[in-house]
Amino acid sequence: MISDMERPLNKTLLESTGNYKGLAILGEDEVKVLCEDIRELIIDVTLKNGGHLGGSLGAVELCVALLRIFNPERDRIIFDVGHQTYAYKILTDRLAKFHTLRTKGGISGFPRRAESRFDVFDVGHSSTSISAALGFAKARDLRGQGHEVVAVIGDGSLLNGLALEALNNVSACGTKLTVILNDNKMSIGPRVGGIAEHLAKLSVSVPYMRLKQFVKDRCRAMSDGRGVENWLDRVKTKLKSLLLPTNMFEEMDISYWGPFDGHNVREMEEIFELSKQYPKPLLIHVITRKGKGCSEAEKEPSKFHGVGSGTVIGLAAAAKTKKKSADWSKSVADKICEMASRDPRIVACTAAMESGTRLEDFRALFPGRFFDVGIAEGHMLTYAAGLAAGGMKPVVCIYSTFLQRAADQIVHDICMQRHPVLIAVDRAGLNGEDGETHQGLLDIAWGKSVPGLTISAPRDRIDLEFMMSGWHDGNFPMMIRYPKGTVPESIARAPDSISAPWGRAEILAEGETVCLVGIGSTVEIVLNAAAECETRGIPGSAVMDLRFAAPVDWPAIDGALAKYSLMVVAEDGYVTGGIGESIAARASSSGAGCRVYPIGVASKYIPHATRGEQLEDQGLTAGGIACFVEELYGGNTAASG
Amino acid sequence: MISDMERPLNKTLLESTGNYKGLAILGEDEVKVLCEDIRELIIDVTLKNGGHLGGSLGAVELCVALLRIFNPERDRIIFDVGHQTYAYKILTDRLAKFHTLRTKGGISGFPRRAESRFDVFDVGHSSTSISAALGFAKARDLRGQGHEVVAVIGDGSLLNGLALEALNNVSACGTKLTVILNDNKMSIGPRVGGIAEHLAKLSVSVPYMRLKQFVKDRCRAMSDGRGVENWLDRVKTKLKSLLLPTNMFEEMDISYWGPFDGHNVREMEEIFELSKQYPKPLLIHVITRKGKGCSEAEKEPSKFHGVGSGTVIGLAAAAKTKKKSADWSKSVADKICEMASRDPRIVACTAAMESGTRLEDFRALFPGRFFDVGIAEGHMLTYAAGLAAGGMKPVVCIYSTFLQRAADQIVHDICMQRHPVLIAVDRAGLNGEDGETHQGLLDIAWGKSVPGLTISAPRDRIDLEFMMSGWHDGNFPMMIRYPKGTVPESIARAPDSISAPWGRAEILAEGETVCLVGIGSTVEIVLNAAAECETRGIPGSAVMDLRFAAPVDWPAIDGALAKYSLMVVAEDGYVTGGIGESIAARASSSGAGCRVYPIGVASKYIPHATRGEQLEDQGLTAGGIACFVEELYGGNTAASG
Repeated sequence: MISDMERPLNKTLLESTGNYKGLAILGEDEVKVLCEDIRELIIDVTLKNGGHLGGSLGAVELCVALLRIFNPERDRIIFDVGHQTYAYKILTDRLAKFHTLRTKGGISGFPRRAESRFDVFDVGHSSTSISAALGFAKARDLRGQGHEVVAVIGDGSLLNGLALEALNNVSACGTKLTVILNDNKMSIGPRVGGIAEHLAKLSVSVPYMRLKQFVKDRCRAMSDGRGVENWLDRVKTKLKSLLLPTNMFEEMDISYWGPFDGHNVREMEEIFELSKQYPKPLLIHVITRKGKGCSEAEKEPSKFHGVGSGTVIGLAAAAKTKKKSADWSKSVADKICEMASRDPRIVACTAAMESGTRLEDFRALFPGRFFDVGIAEGHMLTYAAGLAAGGMKPVVCIYSTFLQRAADQIVHDICMQRHPVLIAVDRAGLNGEDGETHQGLLDIAWGKSVPGLTISAPRDRIDLEFMMSGWHDGNFPMMIRYPKGTVPESIARAPDSISAPWGRAEILAEGETVCLVGIGSTVEIVLNAAAECETRGIPGSAVMDLRFAAPVDWPAIDGALAKYSLMVVAEDGYVTGGIGESIAARASSSGAGCRVYPIGVASKYIPHATRGEQLEDQGLTAGGIACFVEELYGGNTAASG
Repeated sequence: MISDMERPLNKTLLESTGNYKGLAILGEDEVKVLCEDIRELIIDVTLKNGGHLGGSLGAVELCVALLRIFNPERDRIIFDVGHQTYAYKILTDRLAKFHTLRTKGGISGFPRRAESRFDVFDVGHSSTSISAALGFAKARDLRGQGHEVVAVIGDGSLLNGLALEALNNVSACGTKLTVILNDNKMSIGPRVGGIAEHLAKLSVSVPYMRLKQFVKDRCRAMSDGRGVENWLDRVKTKLKSLLLPTNMFEEMDISYWGPFDGHNVREMEEIFELSKQYPKPLLIHVITRKGKGCSEAEKEPSKFHGVGSGTVIGLAAAAKTKKKSADWSKSVADKICEMASRDPRIVACTAAMESGTRLEDFRALFPGRFFDVGIAEGHMLTYAAGLAAGGMKPVVCIYSTFLQRAADQIVHDICMQRHPVLIAVDRAGLNGEDGETHQGLLDIAWGKSVPGLTISAPRDRIDLEFMMSGWHDGNFPMMIRYPKGTVPESIARAPDSISAPWGRAEILAEGETVCLVGIGSTVEIVLNAAAECETRGIPGSAVMDLRFAAPVDWPAIDGALAKYSLMVVAEDGYVTGGIGESIAARASSSGAGCRVYPIGVASKYIPHATRGEQLEDQGLTAGGIACFVEELYGGNTAASG
């Protein structure tokens, strides 16, 4: 058992090494000590601040080897997803700041160009690295430069369509590119699919291991890259059909070297050095262990893929896990189980997010009706459309930010054909510590324009269940969005009281001049804002829970526009294109006297901080809204007076 | 040379056969005649109405064989893209209506569930068929049904990430599925990429041809599927490492049978029949010729992929092609060439749309700076981001509807990092005869919510060039959107007059009460509407060209809101989430007295018709807008009176 208390911090070598420039002079044993130091630092900070533990621990030696062989000032190292880069960050220029990981104003948990010149491409979503690296490589050629371009991609990310499109384009691009496949046999959960099987076959291939030894023996004696290439081609032609297994990369005209031990720095260094002399596109396959160096994380890699802040490992972990049951994701998953127990048409889909979307129980109860398609959001949505067309009622659980990867599938495959798919949009709104790439701020803005898509957002668990049942009883596509975190059991309703009717907004309080409108997670905020307004001397504010962002309950809105003179619509999403804008537009074209103010997230990329800090920064708090109303109200009464 | 006049129509056999039910009794020779009849009908109607000639001609025998072996009432045949289905349509229940192809109220050029029960999945974008078919197959298993599920996909579509994700998921799904790969060695233009090379290798493979003969010989004597499977497995184990080439499908645990002659109905029938008895996922590779039976289309398959209505083949075609030079696409392409001739950083990208986006000249002039990535929109955008990060200034030419397939890449890879990529959004707005799946109605609604994305839309060629130059001079991401069709050289400006400054709207006419705002293609419409209003007795309407949908020129809008009491914002896109909504919301929250009416396309999927008919239906004409204004103006003066 490891805990903050028990692990004495010893970063002497790490501190004296400083950054990647100091790496070159270290001997083999010192490198091992350094890797241990880095690992210790990563565990300490990640358990305190939260973050991506497993991937980053697995890639420590890989990052060290990369930085000993490649020059991050000249070469371009492009990480995929980017949650495995902590060692890279520590060894470039962020050792001193590493303790600020994922805290407001501190360093990001992902590569960020604004943070360091050594981060050359921002990332957070999977499978972009090969496409981006191809772009870098082609630009290099066109500009007559000679540096190396290296994409570092995990085996889970490699199975996404974007990466496969890029692999397929490598040969046509005709440029030198090195892809390092960091294979830990996992995506976020265990990876799935035919290509995964293929990788597994490659990684135990004895002939390849032998080839590797040849390569290593020869490369020591060889300085001329062309010679290496010719030699390899000769060897391959001779051996291939007899010794080597089928290889999808070679079929795509990408040379394949591997597999190598991704925890053996010396072995990787030799191969990376050799790769520089090799003039053609190349994939280097290294095998790593997710969570390496932290026994709990090695044992349960899915669980330790990402950890929350203040995580304790060991005995206390059980309690922590138990507490999770009151969150939005779990409530959605429970409701899916309940529907599935009554209706054999209910099936559930996830894209490598079984644990994040809490579908473990569903999988256990209905293994034949559970589909984890891997990191393949586009395919998942079209597959769900096919399931629905075939008579099922599929529920797709996906984070809002990753749903962006399947935007066209919502339109073209689901809504245009009115397939009854329920898209459960998890982590909608501001998402805290993962920062810019993981915010869920576009689902309403993009979704509301899609004809035929119902969009609902419950304020509490009671309405969540009501809305999911409503979808189940009907026959239409729907998105239901909910934030990260704890689900309130019941907000502003009598115990066990049923919700407003399907499709209708709900008036939670009548008022005099001001009407505050919330939806989903902002309902509780506007309720509190109304109370805060009261204490500031603004007479009773009406409060409305919009409930549905599409179609909007226009009679309820029109009623409120007729009755009140100020309306504030608060949403946990971008205000530009948000639902507040639709309501304000309605006010203008209907000629209502009521002025409508949409508030929400400003049109910016929101960096990492806690969700609370982010809401505060955007004025999405009771105090922030009350303050806003106070100014409006003053202006309004001044104007009318 | 073939023309309408010269080809006598002889559809006797086709008419007597009626539909697929009559196919079974036809002998081999009759089938040949029938295919000729179908081909003739397709050529006649497509040249008259416009449509997808090449793909549909290539798939005639394939559709006939499918319908002789599979039962379209029971089995599920899912076409990819769907522009190769004319023969299928003719032979199911649409022979009598086929002459109405792509005309208003007539049959669609793509599969549409609403049109026929034989069209089981709507489509228009590429590469959805395997995902959807997997869904159908899984639903079949769960419901205990026993029908066949067949996906028919082209080789170009197979290279898109969505199809590759689906292929990768086939083995994990554990369901029987037959994929028919219709390989014409083209996507829309010549296909590109490593997988294409791989297919080419398979399609000339002598061992496979031999295996095919084995399969055929054996299947005649065999009635038990399990026997066939065991036998194939045995043969493969023996022969594979020595005789068979590496095969990516087999690596993904999908059995591969092929290649077969896609114009030999009898050969395909035998294989399709055998496939029914084979219990595992199976890919059948058939080779076809795009444009088969029409010599011009066979010679120039890219050109005859889709043809406009009233196309003539032969000598007159040259004139037709020449006329194309005044269209929006060509003007954009010319401007890219001009910028590229002065700046070596300018590169151009397309996703299998070199001809559609008129980049032929760019390719000829700058072959090393032209990138056709195949049907891989997501990869293209991220590749462009990488090129920009590496110091280039990439211009990406893409149709609005296909840009939906790369929505997240705009956010995550381009705008979040402020990479200076110009996305030239072709076919924006209503698009005519291709119908629901090809409308470009979401680019403004989705794009305006993306922080950091500039969105411009020129009304004429002068502003098009000005806007593209403005992007070139700056260092930021931008979308420039323009419709299908002819570009007006100059609208409402003195000859050679420069446009309004960068980022600003332009007042084209001052007025009294009403302000009409247009953007892009609607500017000319609102100018004409203003004249029409004048004749209807409404005193002079102001006209504004918004020019930029993001960021909006708020000072200009605020000025107009202060000055006028009615504003109509007309856009060629969905009104929900459109730019008119943002302006109307501004009016409401600023407390302007002006009522703002956003008009545009209603929240529906717009079926095929001419673009003119579609604009008319949506009220986006001078008359429609004048009529709308007349009603508002009457109401407004009545209210003030």
